[in-house]
Amino acid sequence: MYTVCVRDHFMIAHSFRGETFGPAQRLHGATYVVDLELRRPDLDCDGVVADIGQLGDCLRAVLDELNYRDLDALPEFAGRNTTTEFLAREIHDRVAARIANGRLGPNAAGLTAMRVTLRESHVAWASYEGPLP
Amino acid sequence: MYTVCVRDHFMIAHSFRGETFGPAQRLHGATYVVDLELRRPDLDCDGVVADIGQLGDCLRAVLDELNYRDLDALPEFAGRNTTTEFLAREIHDRVAARIANGRLGPNAAGLTAMRVTLRESHVAWASYEGPLP
Amino acid sequence: MYTVCVRDHFMIAHSFRGETFGPAQRLHGATYVVDLELRRPDLDCDGVVADIGQLGDCLRAVLDELNYRDLDALPEFAGRNTTTEFLAREIHDRVAARIANGRLGPNAAGLTAMRVTLRESHVAWASYEGPLP
Amino acid sequence: MYTVCVRDHFMIAHSFRGETFGPAQRLHGATYVVDLELRRPDLDCDGVVADIGQLGDCLRAVLDELNYRDLDALPEFAGRNTTTEFLAREIHDRVAARIANGRLGPNAAGLTAMRVTLRESHVAWASYEGPLP
Amino acid sequence: MYTVCVRDHFMIAHSFRGETFGPAQRLHGATYVVDLELRRPDLDCDGVVADIGQLGDCLRAVLDELNYRDLDALPEFAGRNTTTEFLAREIHDRVAARIANGRLGPNAAGLTAMRVTLRESHVAWASYEGPLP
Amino acid sequence: MYTVCVRDHFMIAHSFRGETFGPAQRLHGATYVVDLELRRPDLDCDGVVADIGQLGDCLRAVLDELNYRDLDALPEFAGRNTTTEFLAREIHDRVAARIANGRLGPNAAGLTAMRVTLRESHVAWASYEGPLP
Repeated sequence: MYTVCVRDHFMIAHSFRGETFGPAQRLHGATYVVDLELRRPDLDCDGVVADIGQLGDCLRAVLDELNYRDLDALPEFAGRNTTTEFLAREIHDRVAARIANGRLGPNAAGLTAMRVTLRESHVAWASYEGPLP
Repeated sequence: MYTVCVRDHFMIAHSFRGETFGPAQRLHGATYVVDLELRRPDLDCDGVVADIGQLGDCLRAVLDELNYRDLDALPEFAGRNTTTEFLAREIHDRVAARIANGRLGPNAAGLTAMRVTLRESHVAWASYEGPLP
Repeated sequence: MYTVCVRDHFMIAHSFRGETFGPAQRLHGATYVVDLELRRPDLDCDGVVADIGQLGDCLRAVLDELNYRDLDALPEFAGRNTTTEFLAREIHDRVAARIANGRLGPNAAGLTAMRVTLRESHVAWASYEGPLP
Repeated sequence: MYTVCVRDHFMIAHSFRGETFGPAQRLHGATYVVDLELRRPDLDCDGVVADIGQLGDCLRAVLDELNYRDLDALPEFAGRNTTTEFLAREIHDRVAARIANGRLGPNAAGLTAMRVTLRESHVAWASYEGPLP
Repeated sequence: MYTVCVRDHFMIAHSFRGETFGPAQRLHGATYVVDLELRRPDLDCDGVVADIGQLGDCLRAVLDELNYRDLDALPEFAGRNTTTEFLAREIHDRVAARIANGRLGPNAAGLTAMRVTLRESHVAWASYEGPLP
Repeated sequence: MYTVCVRDHFMIAHSFRGETFGPAQRLHGATYVVDLELRRPDLDCDGVVADIGQLGDCLRAVLDELNYRDLDALPEFAGRNTTTEFLAREIHDRVAARIANGRLGPNAAGLTAMRVTLRESHVAWASYEGPLP
């Protein structure tokens, strides 16, 4: 199995609801360094999993929807805890939708899985991995 | 599949038995930077894989049993080579026992796997991954 | 010249005023990974620049004053842009005040300079270095 | 499942063919930092996945075949795009052949899989993972 | 003293002349991860050393002059060994010229020094630091 | 000012004397990842600060004197706390002696300073910088 990965980041404000979060119930924020991995069993005709230039642009476009935002104020996240895990899944699904819409070109049909990892500090990260249709 | 990871470290002395280890048969030591990953297919009711505060405390408690120790002098390791791989498994099993004892609360029932990685230098690491019951 | 460094982090929300900041004028946030360096020309009687356990506790105490906060709501920062550079200086001065108050013990009299570096992402950081009295 | 990993690097020149590569169609180069991972379900009689000294020597020997080379001039790569993904597979297969030839000793019979990751910058990497016979 | 740093990278081919370089006399290449640091004793009116958006664009523009190039074929480097140290100085001088031309705006008059570091692998780097006029 | 740096590591056992060290008074150990930096105001005739191949060999030779050792048992350290700071100075002086003995060749006469940094974990390091004669 082949994997390719590109890295970028975004910076947001948010707060969590639930006693388990302790002081993180207060309004605070985070830098998330994002690793986007794509997998496929065979390389495409150019000899790559995906073009990392296109892939980086696609990731950047998704992160720009969240970057420099207060996630507590975004309607799509109303009533949700925007935890690191949750955001990893959210970014996974948004990138997957763009790939399904042809954002990475026709060769992307060979992609079989995507993993999104969000590093919130030098000592903690979370990820979500799911299949691509 | 979701994964969450926390990082910590411990520092020990030990020696290895067997010609294959060359100069590492002498008493020496290591800093191990430890990555503890937990996996589950769905998030719990708070929107997390596990609370990283509790998880970090749990890992710290296990590492404190080994930290600043000469592993050659610990009865539980008598006759064993405490290699990086061996210690990754040992920490995996000790954390798994604490989770089974409720250390991470009732939501931990949804956890399905754990991986423990020990980085012994900037050029070598080892890990053990196993299921959680 | 000897230097010792300890690392920790904190997570905050804030916004900036001034057109130069573009979208960072919106409420957002950051994880800052903090490196605290202390310098002295000679080691103390224990053979160290400072005890890294005490130093880490001192840094943690200062970061806890800021951690999980909306910096826009803190009276001490009213009317200021809490940029990475500004916060590096702020943490420098708070740690220096604690050292002056004996927080690191009498041996700290030999310390001559402190540098505080805040890494805001994998591609940007800022620092402040100043003398210790 | 146990994994052990060693890291090394090599530096090459090459160019790519195909419009998708844009300016990378020009002669350029790369440093690849290589992570070689081996997996096995149980440890060998020494308590390791593989001896990391032997493993590092084996990886070094394979990288020396490519290091400080213009890959466009190597007959074995004629007509191929030596992308990061392609090179990860190439190194995987060359190390696997050496293991099959006994380079890691008889205990290597227990190895079940190998992953080779090539980091081409601080923001991009690719890998290939395949079974060992 | 305040410092701000931004990171980017470029990828080139080149070869060295001189027996001391051994196999690096052959055509090969490198990824250079570049850290560009600027220093000033006081912050500007926005509370920063320099705008990291503008600074990143300025660094990117300089690196684009070298990126995906065979340095042996560039007239400006004829007869020179384009070592990591040499390239650090070259990038320093090119960025300094752009700052002198107003690329970072009038506030840049307060800048006093610049350091450029090129990381060529996980185990080697070089830098050049010089004053700004 | 130009700087070049090479990285390597060593692994040792030791213990500390003095109540300030708490549990580190017990026999334990550490991996030290070592960064060796050399500085000079102008490049040599090859266009480098020093040959990194020779420099890496020189550092390796010094680290081999300590690697896989119990520092408590080495006569040269009797009665000393082999702290990270102390070891940084020790390695500095041993490398400096080798350079003075011609280990890096005659061009090394232009070197003006050396810094040695020892990273003992992902959250702590120490260094010593001194002039070269």
